[in-house]
Amino acid sequence: MTAELILNRRDLDFQIFEVNDAEALTQRERHADHSRETFVAALDAAMAIAADKFFTHNRESDEQEPEFDGKRVEIIPQVKDALQAYCEAGFIAPTQDYDLGGMQLPVLMGQAFSAIFKSANAATNSYVGLTIANANVINRFGTESQKKRYLPHMLSGRFFGTMCLTEPQAGSSLSDITTAAVPQGDGSYRLTGNKIFISGGDHELSENIIHLVLARLPGAPAGVKGISLFIVPKFMVNDDGSLGARNDVALAGLIHKMGWRGTTSTMLSFGEKGQCYGELIGQPNQGLAAMFHMMNEARIGVGMGAVMLGYRGYLASLQYARERPQGRRAGSKDPNEPQIKLIAHADIRRMLIAQKAYVEGGLSLGLYAARLVDEQKTGPDETKREEAGLLLELLTPIVKSWPSQWCLEANSLAIQIHGGYGYTREYPVEQFYRDNRLNMIHEGTHAIQSIDLLGRKVVMQQGAALELLGREIAATVKDASAYETLSANADALTIAWSNVVQTVKALAPLLKEKGELALANSVVFLEAFGHTVVAWQWLRQALVATRALKDAKGDDEINFYRGKLHTCAWFFDWELPRCKPQHELLRSLNDSTLTMQDAWF
Amino acid sequence: MTAELILNRRDLDFQIFEVNDAEALTQRERHADHSRETFVAALDAAMAIAADKFFTHNRESDEQEPEFDGKRVEIIPQVKDALQAYCEAGFIAPTQDYDLGGMQLPVLMGQAFSAIFKSANAATNSYVGLTIANANVINRFGTESQKKRYLPHMLSGRFFGTMCLTEPQAGSSLSDITTAAVPQGDGSYRLTGNKIFISGGDHELSENIIHLVLARLPGAPAGVKGISLFIVPKFMVNDDGSLGARNDVALAGLIHKMGWRGTTSTMLSFGEKGQCYGELIGQPNQGLAAMFHMMNEARIGVGMGAVMLGYRGYLASLQYARERPQGRRAGSKDPNEPQIKLIAHADIRRMLIAQKAYVEGGLSLGLYAARLVDEQKTGPDETKREEAGLLLELLTPIVKSWPSQWCLEANSLAIQIHGGYGYTREYPVEQFYRDNRLNMIHEGTHAIQSIDLLGRKVVMQQGAALELLGREIAATVKDASAYETLSANADALTIAWSNVVQTVKALAPLLKEKGELALANSVVFLEAFGHTVVAWQWLRQALVATRALKDAKGDDEINFYRGKLHTCAWFFDWELPRCKPQHELLRSLNDSTLTMQDAWF
Repeated sequence: MTAELILNRRDLDFQIFEVNDAEALTQRERHADHSRETFVAALDAAMAIAADKFFTHNRESDEQEPEFDGKRVEIIPQVKDALQAYCEAGFIAPTQDYDLGGMQLPVLMGQAFSAIFKSANAATNSYVGLTIANANVINRFGTESQKKRYLPHMLSGRFFGTMCLTEPQAGSSLSDITTAAVPQGDGSYRLTGNKIFISGGDHELSENIIHLVLARLPGAPAGVKGISLFIVPKFMVNDDGSLGARNDVALAGLIHKMGWRGTTSTMLSFGEKGQCYGELIGQPNQGLAAMFHMMNEARIGVGMGAVMLGYRGYLASLQYARERPQGRRAGSKDPNEPQIKLIAHADIRRMLIAQKAYVEGGLSLGLYAARLVDEQKTGPDETKREEAGLLLELLTPIVKSWPSQWCLEANSLAIQIHGGYGYTREYPVEQFYRDNRLNMIHEGTHAIQSIDLLGRKVVMQQGAALELLGREIAATVKDASAYETLSANADALTIAWSNVVQTVKALAPLLKEKGELALANSVVFLEAFGHTVVAWQWLRQALVATRALKDAKGDDEINFYRGKLHTCAWFFDWELPRCKPQHELLRSLNDSTLTMQDAWF
Repeated sequence: MTAELILNRRDLDFQIFEVNDAEALTQRERHADHSRETFVAALDAAMAIAADKFFTHNRESDEQEPEFDGKRVEIIPQVKDALQAYCEAGFIAPTQDYDLGGMQLPVLMGQAFSAIFKSANAATNSYVGLTIANANVINRFGTESQKKRYLPHMLSGRFFGTMCLTEPQAGSSLSDITTAAVPQGDGSYRLTGNKIFISGGDHELSENIIHLVLARLPGAPAGVKGISLFIVPKFMVNDDGSLGARNDVALAGLIHKMGWRGTTSTMLSFGEKGQCYGELIGQPNQGLAAMFHMMNEARIGVGMGAVMLGYRGYLASLQYARERPQGRRAGSKDPNEPQIKLIAHADIRRMLIAQKAYVEGGLSLGLYAARLVDEQKTGPDETKREEAGLLLELLTPIVKSWPSQWCLEANSLAIQIHGGYGYTREYPVEQFYRDNRLNMIHEGTHAIQSIDLLGRKVVMQQGAALELLGREIAATVKDASAYETLSANADALTIAWSNVVQTVKALAPLLKEKGELALANSVVFLEAFGHTVVAWQWLRQALVATRALKDAKGDDEINFYRGKLHTCAWFFDWELPRCKPQHELLRSLNDSTLTMQDAWF
């Protein structure tokens, strides 16, 4: 069954309905037409399309990557078919307003749908994932006229969208971008400049492509305070929605990647003929803030993408381990006994539990973040809305970075379980490993996430977000402590969190005067913080499972919950202890990286 | 300069001459014709061929992998050119006897040459690497007639060799191989069976291919005690060395891999027509012991291969980090300042130091193992010879596994330093990452190494090898303690080693009665043991550097030694502390992987 290789539906339902109480959201006015049944029906529909249309060409779109013949980009036809089915079923706008053609579903559900499609085919899903993020920016910052001109076509899938930030000479350093936008008398702008690594930057999968482009106005301040955001369509859009002339945006070339090959990654050249039309969106010099509206969502999306590649690999290796006979149990070497299945070996189970811990922990984290977005957007209590926003800001670097690191590790374990076969292209797992390696890089590298977390998020508003997360964790700890089977883990989480707080106390005072020293080991902080947050997510899941187990009926249900409890315990025994030496290193203010000299390499 | 991207020659010279005192070997009769000058000349020659002939087609042999048209295997011509130059210069037999056409160089030097070629082109080097290992088995176990028939042609590069262990249904479980060998009246055998993942199993790079094949004699005991070893040539070899008829060995297909694409990986079918000629080599049912003679060497070779892929990535990312301007220092965000080079960022330097620590630590370990082989083979003192053999047995699983894990991590860091560019095929680092992922799998997976280490090596001869390594480490600690700058690291190593010993004491008594529990977490032991051994290697290097620094002349020399000292300190501060929680887990006899149920996944 294909569906069983995409994700464990029981797990998804658990996370949505039991851990994150999706049903409670149907009490809110925005979602009043919905019920558990409509949620389930939509999940079923997503699974069906993902299995029939996305899963089926995942390897082919890796093997036959997009090609540019100098005129048009050739992509295997299954990609367009899949995206058409996706858009027709409404998955491009599930969370949008009814009057925009959306279904007014919670963001939690939107992320769950995305998760399904990402698992089935990460590359094909990228085209619409970017379009959704782009449409959200236009919806939030666009004028009425801009919304009218672009949004309906994006939310129907007629136009796709991109985000154009990176430039060849600037890389991660957005303050150094040089693309220029010059105002014309008519309120429009003419852009000139080059962008690189633009996913979905050119193709013929949709009638038009709407680029959101960071550029500078004449005389704008240097650095990030002089960046504005522009809408730049591939084809001009007439008032009636029909397409006009080709805009002066040229595909300078496709980039050939290690993985994620099904998504075109492009170099785009704006205004080679001096005729690149653009529209300012939002306020002048406020482009980065607008883009970050999109980036935060994109970062959750990246984290979820990493989770789902990990999930695919986990399920593939689980299936393989259950089917493949290999060797005998340690200590019973009698060659006349029949071989046992791979899964009976302790080390294979280690690698399966680790994968389960990483991918289900990551999924829990990503869906929790999505639930926070719902709380922030539609929560009935203003304080809770603000708190949700604060938590979300704090957790976004973790939601993005933790799965990018650990679900990639999961993919490596999936290969290892397959042995030599896993290293071949006859099996799917090597592709997931190649695909997933991107996620630590794009939408803000690992280091950038770590500087965001330690340099900004944990100290913002005098540490208000950190304190709030501490309270949330303490609440879970309190509940878990009531159960004998969870109390040791609850205690360990308390210690782990207090270690985070102590480290922040040691480093935060240095941020202003000795910023370089305070931030020198920020990636170590990101990792220790991330593991602590995911331990918390596991304890949340274990708490729900413990309560549910009491009344669980049937072997399948009991086994499911026991699996959650066992994996939670595993994470606390095997993973959380990694943090202690990390905190010790951080608090020692180790300056190895600063004192190392170039000439010593 | 290509040479500077292959390896840091200063480092190689340091490891060979200063850490491992290669010159002392010239005192031995076998190497009496040699001197530092001949060693250096041979290294220079290897560097020149590696740079001109191997380095130059590394990407091409990845992009244009070998193809099988049903008749012959097509490989880009640069591979044959390179191997020809290699063989003509004598690098296929540098350590062999003069009368076999060799140069009687120490194994230490042989591994150094291999390191150079592996860095330049891992895939192309495989063909000859396997041939050298194969020839060593024939030399050690073959009859005079077998040696005469095959060896000279292998050591001239006219014939290449393979090792045929794995079968599709058996994988790592060698006791389950079923390839059969039936004796004919004439002393020869006829083989039937299938082998998989045979590197270099077919090609036209050499005139002939000599397969070493594990198979069973009729009535042989089940399991590994019933395995014999056979020489199976692709073409029969006449007494005068000319080629006879094609033997009944067929290429059933090429395997397409994630990386290491330049080396053919094959499925071979022996005896489809019932006419597959083979010769028994060594004693009946003693094949595994003979093969392990080769495997131990192959495992050191795998470890060194992993090191050198890591080394290539390190040097590529170092060059990139020195050249690429990007962003500004943390805390000085003025966008009007010029961008700084990547290498000026703390996190980039973290990733460079980590790579340096992994690859130079791995190189030190691999060359130390090679030096032990020399001691074992040509050492003047019998006790020392035996001790060298014992140390080698103990360390082989680490030499193989540690670089496979950590130099792969180095390759991931090399990609990360390149940012988005690193993920593209326009830069070399993504290939190293793909290539290196193989090394945790072939020649005994990570888990198999760990069971070998914990289940066999640390307890063999009542722990004699472990005790011996402890004495070696204690000697380094004692020397290092005399230097104020090294004494803290020496103390840390003492504690780390005593942790290893304590863990062995806790687990060893369980091996017999509770083997499954004792070995359940053996991979964790492998990792903790490995990090401790590499910490020791770093302290050995730091000790030599400390002594040399006193009299070092010129900035280059001083900087080189300071780099060693800084990186040693980094390894102790950043890496060694990982071991403590690992030992705690091991001693707690955590049984998560055993109690986890299949139905809970």
